[in-house]
Amino acid sequence: MAAIHVGVIGCGTVGQGVARLLVERAEAFRRRLGVPLVLGRVAEVEAARAAASGLAPSLFTPRAQDLLDDPDLDIVVELIGGTETARELVLAALARGKHVVTANKALLALHGNEIFEAAAQAGVEVAFEASVCGGIPIILALRQGLAANRLQELLGILNGTTNYILSRMAEDNLPYDTALAEAQAQGYAEADPSLDVDGVDAAHKLAILMALAYETRIDFEAVSVSGIRGLDPLDLQFAREFGYAVKLLAISRNDGDRLEARVHPTLIPRDHLLAGVSGAMNAVHLIGDAVGPLLLSGAGAGQLPTASAVLSDILDVARNLSLGIRRRLPPLGSEAALTRRRPVKPLAEVVTNYYFRFAALDRPGVLSQISGVLAKYQISIAAVIQKGREVKGAVPIVMITHEAREADVQQALAEIDRLPVVSPPTVMYRIEDPHLHSARI
Amino acid sequence: MAAIHVGVIGCGTVGQGVARLLVERAEAFRRRLGVPLVLGRVAEVEAARAAASGLAPSLFTPRAQDLLDDPDLDIVVELIGGTETARELVLAALARGKHVVTANKALLALHGNEIFEAAAQAGVEVAFEASVCGGIPIILALRQGLAANRLQELLGILNGTTNYILSRMAEDNLPYDTALAEAQAQGYAEADPSLDVDGVDAAHKLAILMALAYETRIDFEAVSVSGIRGLDPLDLQFAREFGYAVKLLAISRNDGDRLEARVHPTLIPRDHLLAGVSGAMNAVHLIGDAVGPLLLSGAGAGQLPTASAVLSDILDVARNLSLGIRRRLPPLGSEAALTRRRPVKPLAEVVTNYYFRFAALDRPGVLSQISGVLAKYQISIAAVIQKGREVKGAVPIVMITHEAREADVQQALAEIDRLPVVSPPTVMYRIEDPHLHSARI
Repeated sequence: MAAIHVGVIGCGTVGQGVARLLVERAEAFRRRLGVPLVLGRVAEVEAARAAASGLAPSLFTPRAQDLLDDPDLDIVVELIGGTETARELVLAALARGKHVVTANKALLALHGNEIFEAAAQAGVEVAFEASVCGGIPIILALRQGLAANRLQELLGILNGTTNYILSRMAEDNLPYDTALAEAQAQGYAEADPSLDVDGVDAAHKLAILMALAYETRIDFEAVSVSGIRGLDPLDLQFAREFGYAVKLLAISRNDGDRLEARVHPTLIPRDHLLAGVSGAMNAVHLIGDAVGPLLLSGAGAGQLPTASAVLSDILDVARNLSLGIRRRLPPLGSEAALTRRRPVKPLAEVVTNYYFRFAALDRPGVLSQISGVLAKYQISIAAVIQKGREVKGAVPIVMITHEAREADVQQALAEIDRLPVVSPPTVMYRIEDPHLHSARI
Repeated sequence: MAAIHVGVIGCGTVGQGVARLLVERAEAFRRRLGVPLVLGRVAEVEAARAAASGLAPSLFTPRAQDLLDDPDLDIVVELIGGTETARELVLAALARGKHVVTANKALLALHGNEIFEAAAQAGVEVAFEASVCGGIPIILALRQGLAANRLQELLGILNGTTNYILSRMAEDNLPYDTALAEAQAQGYAEADPSLDVDGVDAAHKLAILMALAYETRIDFEAVSVSGIRGLDPLDLQFAREFGYAVKLLAISRNDGDRLEARVHPTLIPRDHLLAGVSGAMNAVHLIGDAVGPLLLSGAGAGQLPTASAVLSDILDVARNLSLGIRRRLPPLGSEAALTRRRPVKPLAEVVTNYYFRFAALDRPGVLSQISGVLAKYQISIAAVIQKGREVKGAVPIVMITHEAREADVQQALAEIDRLPVVSPPTVMYRIEDPHLHSARI
């Protein structure tokens, strides 16, 4: 093979980074591969972006279709985002025998199974390191580095926007709206931040990681999701008094029969390695049955970190092409992952520890009424703080529980919120604390 | 290919772990590879180990040579440690066309270039994920995941024994000897702990990582090494007062022209991610020009974490064999790394921040004399603590410096140690603190 030609669809922030590295680092990549890696064509509808990229104008076309029709391109990089057009383009590229590299987590979470099957049929590769945690080589680690392990647990800070917001709220005691506005001003949050703050983006990424970790089809629908919208800084303070930080965690666990899959604001011990991951950083903490606990952390987004991941995929696919092999490794590390389905436990059956903040009338017997309802549902209290009088005569009562079943918690809170001495709704967050687990035993 | 056969030389702790995973997880590996991965033969001189392994006695031979002579074995795993016999065995295996997987960092640090050249000549692979940081997939990350980056800096906690000793000293204010004895009792330190506590093991690993990170031949001799032997808990306390933790760091930096390569006890800010890596854990914190800062941490030793890494190598080589390809990727990620030599800056020319503890007579003018000598060598003081009277009339004066050149520091300390008011030798440690760097500017 004389040279390997790459086409890039979408020349926004990441696309420009990818194009720049391909051009500027051509000599280093040639040294690694033995053959030149050439940026052959770039599709970009916005002429201003093409002009701003500093690349030769002759490289550009406004039509992605031109790249699909170009017989010289071996690898197509999809960087337009979104799920509908991206899906059509990726499927069309695969059908034409082109290898695809994508950074698009929503696409893979929603259409990954279809895309992986199409790639298998076409005998080409789909690589997606940049779709989860930007520059952190977590896909590579799960697909190859930990291949001998059964993964027991995976906890991730998979969304930099929400981690930035929570970090700013915790550091400077900012209200949610102020921290969000700051994240938007810094370019960490979109004008419409819903996908990030509602946890959907993190859930997309968790669904992808779980397929790799547990050798199973992608099952985004099975992930329970709640976000950080409207989180009260008061709860960050109480969490800290109990020794916890609050992070939007993506959590999955493998109990042998079933998997857990959930994204929600979570209290974690302040000395947990994930608690130290601040600002827009991402991290994955996992436990493999052989490797034990492992942490990977780094930049989860941004032009060059994401481009670094895209390029690692391009180099990997290009090396196979240079050797004349295709699909050395299936996208999820195992062909079996395309057909296996691992059942996911409904959230109602999850057993974990909880944080509650009740707004209670400051009267004798309130705590007894609340704890009576909790006891009825087999929820036992590990710690409680009752604070001084607040506005409207309601005082916060904050509790940490031993392990309890989610369904019991939901029922208990509904019953407590009907008590005349409680001002609903009660605030509830889940806790990940290995020490609290073992304290129960 | 009907099946891929693996031979294991050395059935100690790690060897038993590797053999166990190969046998117990055969079905999962077959699913991943498409062909069976078979443990074909185990060489172990100690009959007791063979008996204790629980493996079929027919698998065992006391002679490693039997594995080299066995035409059915495709991959040989070297787990005997040491450098002389291991070198001979590995070279012999390569010469016979067998692929080699090894966990032996000393072997690669001292004979890696020779071994990699022999593997290139024979057209076979040498894989060594387990040689650095046990189960952490750092070799994979450098060899593939970060291939698009120029690495700017790499800081590592690469030796679990010393990290355990330092953690115990810091947590419970233990003297060095007590913490070492505890590490030995826990199985974290050898009866002769020299390779660990003197920093040699960490330097072996740094030399390997640098070859991958900077696409250069292995150059162990160029690594400056000092260990933690005799470190005084007093210095851990003073470091803490300045906001630092003390870790045995392996440090390398790329200034474009030359590399830095050194292993020594180092003060790092207590909020640095590496400061949170405690006990026998390992970690690598690196900065790539595209990916930015990245941390990987996990178990750096132990039966199953190390076996996890060995198996990831076996699976990688086996996949190539199953596809009929050899040497898909050179051992260091680039064939050029076998011939390129990146010069390493002598320690004397390194510029960094320093911690000094002077034992000074409690007299007026002492600080002025000491700081006078420092000023003469262009060493400026960022912070100083002088503590109350100690035994023999000497009091500790503890300083943090701005950036200074190592040669100047060595000369200044030699001169200060000749002052009549100072009781030599002055304690000196280096600091890695990005904030202190920038404070200078």
